[in-house]
Amino acid sequence: MTNCLLASTSTIFGGSYLDYLFDALGELYQNTEEVIFIPFARPGGISHDAYSEMAATAFQHIGKKLTGLHTFDEPKAALKSAKGIFTGGGNSFVLVNSLYHHHLMPTLRQVILNGTPYLGTSAGSNIAGPTIKTTNDMPIVYPPSYDTLAIIPMNINPHYLDPDPNSTHKGETRETRIKEFHEFNTTPVIGLREGSWIRVQNKEITLHGGQLSARIFEKGKDAYEIPAGASLDFLKNQ
Amino acid sequence: MTNCLLASTSTIFGGSYLDYLFDALGELYQNTEEVIFIPFARPGGISHDAYSEMAATAFQHIGKKLTGLHTFDEPKAALKSAKGIFTGGGNSFVLVNSLYHHHLMPTLRQVILNGTPYLGTSAGSNIAGPTIKTTNDMPIVYPPSYDTLAIIPMNINPHYLDPDPNSTHKGETRETRIKEFHEFNTTPVIGLREGSWIRVQNKEITLHGGQLSARIFEKGKDAYEIPAGASLDFLKNQ
Repeated sequence: MTNCLLASTSTIFGGSYLDYLFDALGELYQNTEEVIFIPFARPGGISHDAYSEMAATAFQHIGKKLTGLHTFDEPKAALKSAKGIFTGGGNSFVLVNSLYHHHLMPTLRQVILNGTPYLGTSAGSNIAGPTIKTTNDMPIVYPPSYDTLAIIPMNINPHYLDPDPNSTHKGETRETRIKEFHEFNTTPVIGLREGSWIRVQNKEITLHGGQLSARIFEKGKDAYEIPAGASLDFLKNQ
Repeated sequence: MTNCLLASTSTIFGGSYLDYLFDALGELYQNTEEVIFIPFARPGGISHDAYSEMAATAFQHIGKKLTGLHTFDEPKAALKSAKGIFTGGGNSFVLVNSLYHHHLMPTLRQVILNGTPYLGTSAGSNIAGPTIKTTNDMPIVYPPSYDTLAIIPMNINPHYLDPDPNSTHKGETRETRIKEFHEFNTTPVIGLREGSWIRVQNKEITLHGGQLSARIFEKGKDAYEIPAGASLDFLKNQ
């Protein structure tokens, strides 16, 4: 029953908030007029109200009403009766910390598995994997756990960046960081470039977004590319 | 009594491991021939043995013998009797996790405050601040705490990178990430560019490294630059 769209980024270069996804969101949310927004990741420290307003403005373009989860007295009940959910990007540690603080992680997982259409962007996509251990974010708060929804069997690295061959910087490349992850973990990782997204429909997982390939990292293997349109189901049995 | 050298990076572009620091290390370790190396940050997943060997080779250039902490049966006692200590870079979460696992955090703090000369590079510098909440690393393991040595009263962001005005990437810049940190924390942050280091001598804290300035972030203020040679003592009272 699962019906998710997990995007690398909310916004692509030269575009406005969510605009490259409007067609895909029309399809994702085709059976609902109302969507609940989880603003907990607070990009740039923006307030829950301001972030929800920004997202609601974008959702007007697809004719959907969007309401911030923080405005409900009973957020757990609100998620249970939601017809659609969207978790925005920002800081993954802040997002996960808030979801644990409000005891919402199991409920959010259950309603997504029951079929509530779910959109994630960046940090909101990250939490669809088993953990946030492949986030790019700074650990500005200490959450009670890195474990997340495990809707898909791989970790996402959003905003994936290829190494710059002309760089003089000595900090680790993204690929090096993900290889270090596999020294301590076995979960496959998908490096999702800006403009790519993953669709989860029932039990099928596919890569979408223009002609962009994604980079797959499996423990003990060299990293490799898969093309847009490809199925990611083969990662289920890793 | 404190005597620390906290470098942004072990290696600068075009150089070899630690070479730009040899003169400064000769001064830091002038009263000892032997240094204990903490290899726990394991860059790229390298083994403790291989990492210690790499560091020992570099230390031969300054005529010092270097021994990995992991080779001691009693690491706590080894730190207590050490004449000099060096913590190498790698993954800050892995480093902090190992220090907690071996119950070494309070001992390491105490011997540094007692005057044992200490070198940190990258993650090894990061832990000299109050927390690792401004690391650039991926959270590939979940440590029991983000709290670290608090030898200096500010957090370090090593490998500090200025925003690229030509970037088409939509992930957060380093400055944005540190501003988000200050939505949740009050500790000042120093963005330390590659080639810069901090010297802590007794109670004095100064910036070193060629003509490089460092970027200072204080909660509620615009970020600003301080020049090489400047004192950082003014951040003590923030």
